[in-house]
Amino acid sequence: MSNNGSTRQMLIVDCLQYCNWSEAIFREIREAGISAIHATVSYHGNFQAMVRDIMDWNQRFETFSAMIMPGRTGEDIKTAHAEGRTAIFFGLQNPSPIEDDIRLLEVAYDLGLRFMQLTYNNQSLLASGCYEARDGGISTMGREVIAEMNRLGMVIDMSHSSTLSTMEAIELSTRPIAVTHANPYAWHPVPRNKPDHVIKALAESGGMLGFSLYTHHLKGGTDCTIDEFAAMVARVADMVGVDCLGIGSDLCQFQPDSVVTWMRNGNWTKSSGTASFPPQPEWIRSNRDLTRLADAFGRTGFSEQDIEKLMGGNWLRFYETSFGRSPRSRNVATADARPASPTN
Amino acid sequence: MSNNGSTRQMLIVDCLQYCNWSEAIFREIREAGISAIHATVSYHGNFQAMVRDIMDWNQRFETFSAMIMPGRTGEDIKTAHAEGRTAIFFGLQNPSPIEDDIRLLEVAYDLGLRFMQLTYNNQSLLASGCYEARDGGISTMGREVIAEMNRLGMVIDMSHSSTLSTMEAIELSTRPIAVTHANPYAWHPVPRNKPDHVIKALAESGGMLGFSLYTHHLKGGTDCTIDEFAAMVARVADMVGVDCLGIGSDLCQFQPDSVVTWMRNGNWTKSSGTASFPPQPEWIRSNRDLTRLADAFGRTGFSEQDIEKLMGGNWLRFYETSFGRSPRSRNVATADARPASPTN
Repeated sequence: MSNNGSTRQMLIVDCLQYCNWSEAIFREIREAGISAIHATVSYHGNFQAMVRDIMDWNQRFETFSAMIMPGRTGEDIKTAHAEGRTAIFFGLQNPSPIEDDIRLLEVAYDLGLRFMQLTYNNQSLLASGCYEARDGGISTMGREVIAEMNRLGMVIDMSHSSTLSTMEAIELSTRPIAVTHANPYAWHPVPRNKPDHVIKALAESGGMLGFSLYTHHLKGGTDCTIDEFAAMVARVADMVGVDCLGIGSDLCQFQPDSVVTWMRNGNWTKSSGTASFPPQPEWIRSNRDLTRLADAFGRTGFSEQDIEKLMGGNWLRFYETSFGRSPRSRNVATADARPASPTN
Repeated sequence: MSNNGSTRQMLIVDCLQYCNWSEAIFREIREAGISAIHATVSYHGNFQAMVRDIMDWNQRFETFSAMIMPGRTGEDIKTAHAEGRTAIFFGLQNPSPIEDDIRLLEVAYDLGLRFMQLTYNNQSLLASGCYEARDGGISTMGREVIAEMNRLGMVIDMSHSSTLSTMEAIELSTRPIAVTHANPYAWHPVPRNKPDHVIKALAESGGMLGFSLYTHHLKGGTDCTIDEFAAMVARVADMVGVDCLGIGSDLCQFQPDSVVTWMRNGNWTKSSGTASFPPQPEWIRSNRDLTRLADAFGRTGFSEQDIEKLMGGNWLRFYETSFGRSPRSRNVATADARPASPTN
């Protein structure tokens, strides 16, 4: 079923999408031969709202079982690849669905959640988001939640979190964390991209960075070329090595602007301000385009082996070791051990 | 860790308990060497209330991991037996937690639920309970839920359901069902016990009957002797064979009378009427006493092999084949195929 051109048979993992899921998109994903996608299940809303989102996915798994399957373990990626299907891994872009109850993390894990951002753009109960005026880092509850996510084997995702929050999460977590979808701040200085010292700390701790293809995260926006993007990836690989790098496209195919408005406004403002999706560069408008990256990585000088790592091999290794209960017991860093925070 | 007297090493499964769970009870269970228990998670209340009940169990699994473990597959019983632990399988005595949404069944399954009664004593959205004045059998939604439970591999339990509901569930279900805790009506004629024609239909369809040790289900009540109980089991085995029979003790150790009042009154009446737990016969007051049954079965003439089946072997086989997604597609009996019901 796979038909990904020069990358035929290559195992591809995209570690962040939030498309307006449909049979048409699943067909594109299968044509591109993508073996696993980390799909955002929920942004804002409470636990019950997340359960409704999961029930929608369960319906898709039943209706489109020839194309997609639930992803729960790293092994599921290999199964999906062998069967010509796509394993869908659940994630949250915001901890709202666990409300104020740490015990809901295990319930969410048992329902299939494998990633959770400690914040979206704003401050959460757990940490500061990247658009807050002041950066309070990880909160008291955030420390407890990191320990519980470590115990369960749910990946801490700091893509939308602040710099201090991300650095503290790397330090506090006993298992490697991820920034599933962001680019270097040094390349394109916006709050959503990560400073080099964060990328280095992430890499040194065994964590993963997924490069984003969302227009606002690209230098030059819509005019960014695929070779400029590949050259940026090569520079990061020169800085931290290739083994901690992958793709987190942030593709939001066929979503109306009302959805990005809701992403930004959630339930936290009565503002009537609206947002809109920016036009994507012409080379990355659909799942079908993801395979073009392999060719661009080749042109910029990556070896075939490194291209396989970037396109999915690194995420496969990370998924294989990140999910599932830890044999280690829970280890909450005490309040006394909390590093001084410049802003509280 | 197992110390079950003459039945040492015997694999024991109790297919219904609702104790006031504590470390003391888990120690008794381990002293008795019980390898698996189907524990009622919820009676009345909505989905969110069930999630709270599951979170309480998750806490117990974490705190008492040396003694208990989550039971999800038949294989888990063997693992627990080998490790000297007890696998706890979740069940619902009432479909209230799935509210009016069939999609909540899969969510409940993914949270560990493996048994669900289609009714408690009253009429539910799915069927008639054994205390209703009129017996409407399985409802329209009930047929859909049976098909979905068949798909998921969640066991249909008709212990508290009406006669017609139970007969129709046996007929409609494509996988064997269970009456986890009841006795023959012919032995002790109360609404909770099952007529012989129901027991025969259950056995012929590959289903299982778990004998109850709750005082109100025993001939003579508190005065019933263990040998009278064993003789009743022997008569049922003469009628339908031994392979469809097991234990579902209905033990409710250390529960206050307020709990049985809530079982009976749920949220459906404002009556202030209270209920109380009857005194148990002296030979079955705790988990420690369950192993006495093996000796009584021996005295009444069962072979050692049959005793092993009655004490857990039959439930083990049933658990091994009843849980997990069915390879068959969903098959909802159409309304046209509905058998005539005498009361609607």
